[in-house]
Amino acid sequence: MSKVTYPLLLVNLKTYPQGTGKKALELAKICEKVMKKTDVCIAVAVQAADIRLISTEVDVPVFSQHIDPITPGSNTGQILIGAIKEAGAIGTLINHSEKKIKLASIAKILQLTKENDLFSCVCASTSKIAGAIAALEPNCCAIEPPELIGSGISVSTAKPEIITETVDIMKKINSQVVPLCGAGITNSGDVRKALELGTKGILVASGVVKAANPEKILEEMANVSRDFTD
Amino acid sequence: MSKVTYPLLLVNLKTYPQGTGKKALELAKICEKVMKKTDVCIAVAVQAADIRLISTEVDVPVFSQHIDPITPGSNTGQILIGAIKEAGAIGTLINHSEKKIKLASIAKILQLTKENDLFSCVCASTSKIAGAIAALEPNCCAIEPPELIGSGISVSTAKPEIITETVDIMKKINSQVVPLCGAGITNSGDVRKALELGTKGILVASGVVKAANPEKILEEMANVSRDFTD
Amino acid sequence: MSKVTYPLLLVNLKTYPQGTGKKALELAKICEKVMKKTDVCIAVAVQAADIRLISTEVDVPVFSQHIDPITPGSNTGQILIGAIKEAGAIGTLINHSEKKIKLASIAKILQLTKENDLFSCVCASTSKIAGAIAALEPNCCAIEPPELIGSGISVSTAKPEIITETVDIMKKINSQVVPLCGAGITNSGDVRKALELGTKGILVASGVVKAANPEKILEEMANVSRDFTD
Amino acid sequence: MSKVTYPLLLVNLKTYPQGTGKKALELAKICEKVMKKTDVCIAVAVQAADIRLISTEVDVPVFSQHIDPITPGSNTGQILIGAIKEAGAIGTLINHSEKKIKLASIAKILQLTKENDLFSCVCASTSKIAGAIAALEPNCCAIEPPELIGSGISVSTAKPEIITETVDIMKKINSQVVPLCGAGITNSGDVRKALELGTKGILVASGVVKAANPEKILEEMANVSRDFTD
Repeated sequence: MSKVTYPLLLVNLKTYPQGTGKKALELAKICEKVMKKTDVCIAVAVQAADIRLISTEVDVPVFSQHIDPITPGSNTGQILIGAIKEAGAIGTLINHSEKKIKLASIAKILQLTKENDLFSCVCASTSKIAGAIAALEPNCCAIEPPELIGSGISVSTAKPEIITETVDIMKKINSQVVPLCGAGITNSGDVRKALELGTKGILVASGVVKAANPEKILEEMANVSRDFTD
Repeated sequence: MSKVTYPLLLVNLKTYPQGTGKKALELAKICEKVMKKTDVCIAVAVQAADIRLISTEVDVPVFSQHIDPITPGSNTGQILIGAIKEAGAIGTLINHSEKKIKLASIAKILQLTKENDLFSCVCASTSKIAGAIAALEPNCCAIEPPELIGSGISVSTAKPEIITETVDIMKKINSQVVPLCGAGITNSGDVRKALELGTKGILVASGVVKAANPEKILEEMANVSRDFTD
Repeated sequence: MSKVTYPLLLVNLKTYPQGTGKKALELAKICEKVMKKTDVCIAVAVQAADIRLISTEVDVPVFSQHIDPITPGSNTGQILIGAIKEAGAIGTLINHSEKKIKLASIAKILQLTKENDLFSCVCASTSKIAGAIAALEPNCCAIEPPELIGSGISVSTAKPEIITETVDIMKKINSQVVPLCGAGITNSGDVRKALELGTKGILVASGVVKAANPEKILEEMANVSRDFTD
Repeated sequence: MSKVTYPLLLVNLKTYPQGTGKKALELAKICEKVMKKTDVCIAVAVQAADIRLISTEVDVPVFSQHIDPITPGSNTGQILIGAIKEAGAIGTLINHSEKKIKLASIAKILQLTKENDLFSCVCASTSKIAGAIAALEPNCCAIEPPELIGSGISVSTAKPEIITETVDIMKKINSQVVPLCGAGITNSGDVRKALELGTKGILVASGVVKAANPEKILEEMANVSRDFTD
């Protein structure tokens, strides 16, 4: 299954030791196993150098963590949309709080993802920024208050009003863009809360990647998510 | 053969259509063929997403086109040295004129390449900058006047004094760092000139990647280079 | 008069020789003269180093060309909102196509301009980007197709549909944000067209700053603008 | 006195509230008073928006905290060397750890400062980087281990070997470039140590700017420095 469906659990492997190379492959296989068992979509966002390894061996939607606003040609050291697509990615994160980019670059990348039929998930640190992103028409937008990233304190529990506000603003500006949320999500309770508040999925990193038992946590998250299938 | 030897022909595949994915693989196979035939080292600098594909199927030294000054951990959308090494890269370009980076980042990356035993080739746009880079102790430094990149006018023919000056400055500051040159190199005459002027190899991109017959050009370049083997 | 009123002629002095130091002061005095004569608001966007010189000697609204998303504290080499306000600026350009910034920085700067009561004019290169900016609630947003900047071909004449589209999108997302337009504007005909298409003013640089007779051009532009006073 | 002499006390006012606008002027007047009394050179590095205010009212060498690698022309929101010179600056910081820039930009800025006869002080975070900077021929280079900046722990006391090493490397690569040091310097003992270790001056910020009695501290620092006049 290489298509995104909702609810979506999007696991960002970052550059963690547990999310690089062979370790990334192991983690992606766990995602695949849980996805098959629960029928809930679990995608992985991996480093550019790992996309091909994972997409050829695992049947989950594979995302890049970033692409550059470039077309084929005389560029060096950049991430080309055509290269990550050919390597097997079906989507990409854009503007993650650890890779914030210029407004004009976000707009250009979204034009490229649309033209190349790549799934786009843009990150926002505030509800107002999420509104701006909605105007640019990505597939989805993930609100992630940066102060909670990696904190173990879930945005859905600690700041539910941010999610509600984001969902409202995005709906008003462009109801086609799907709201996700992230930051501090570590268990199925956080996921339930996020979905109850109107998002259609979550972005999670250390809560799964650095967990003692990623499979158990993912399965619990997926089980909770099934109640929110359309 | 996955080690760098001199004279070195370093082919930067950039993000050219001819240098991406399966096309990159084809080109790398041509490099391998010429390298085996001539015994001259031909390395390829490829996009992060293509490193694994090429390193597993082709026996040439594979370079990344860039790495970020980061260690494993909470980073998104960056190129981690551990990831490209595990994917099969044995070296990396740094500070290419199309991916210029901060001085502090160059220094940090060179510390990482040393600790991780990765071959480092830093690019410089002037002889003075090449001198500064020599003080940072990379394996080699390639002088590339940016106005000649992609021009078809070879630095070794059009501006030989820049090469001589660079070789001199680098030797004075750190004679361990190997000088290369690039920009506008399209034929074996340009390569011969570059080696005669004191460099130990060349950096080439469009001159090979976009050539009608890359194999022929590479073979001519390699044949010329053999006269300069230590 | 140090307040912005509409229609607004906003003259960006850039770092042109004619727009630096004493020359900038001369130009600002011409703006003041025409503003007094025509009663049309003419603001100047000047380099940080020139704000105090101009604001103390000339009675026009003075803008900074950029501010950084920082608050007072341990920062070096950045443009602090408090410093440019104390120097006499009453507004600032943000995200000019020659100083494009991150989406998160635009949002942060707009929070600062609101808290510090500074007038904000954010630039956009496409109508879609203008929509995103409208969601961030600046005072105004100037659409400037970058390919026309400095071209002498006016956006209002060459690409009227871009302006119409921008005005529509901005109105839909946030009707409080005032649309301006720029790029290639060199005469009063361009200004009339821009105002007829629904903008409330224009952003002009070389068309005035590098003109043989800036006063004459500004006066013609101001005269045309008077027909569009609310 | 608007020329730099050694030993040099270079006070970076950053964007501290105590270092902005009228407060910056007060502090600069204190520097002037101590400089006249002790005959030791005390320069101030101020925000671009404050250069003119301070240079017209105070007789100390005024530095910019940064300049951009640009020449007069179509640039917006950048700091032009011609503008800060006309405003009264006689020098500039470059590559401060809070405003790190690309290697190529440092080289370009140093070409501009040389052509325009502006004093250049480039900052380095390690001795190896200081060596690279020495190859680029600025007037002076200040070593500042970033972990000590604002710490109150002086580099000269806590890490004397870094200073010794930096002085040695710089001398070897280019003995014309004057070594300074900074980070954590708060009293005259720190200054004495720095000068004994072979530097010709210090870069100080919070230690003076945020001090309860800046005049007293500066005077003590200047008195100590007099012993090291050539």
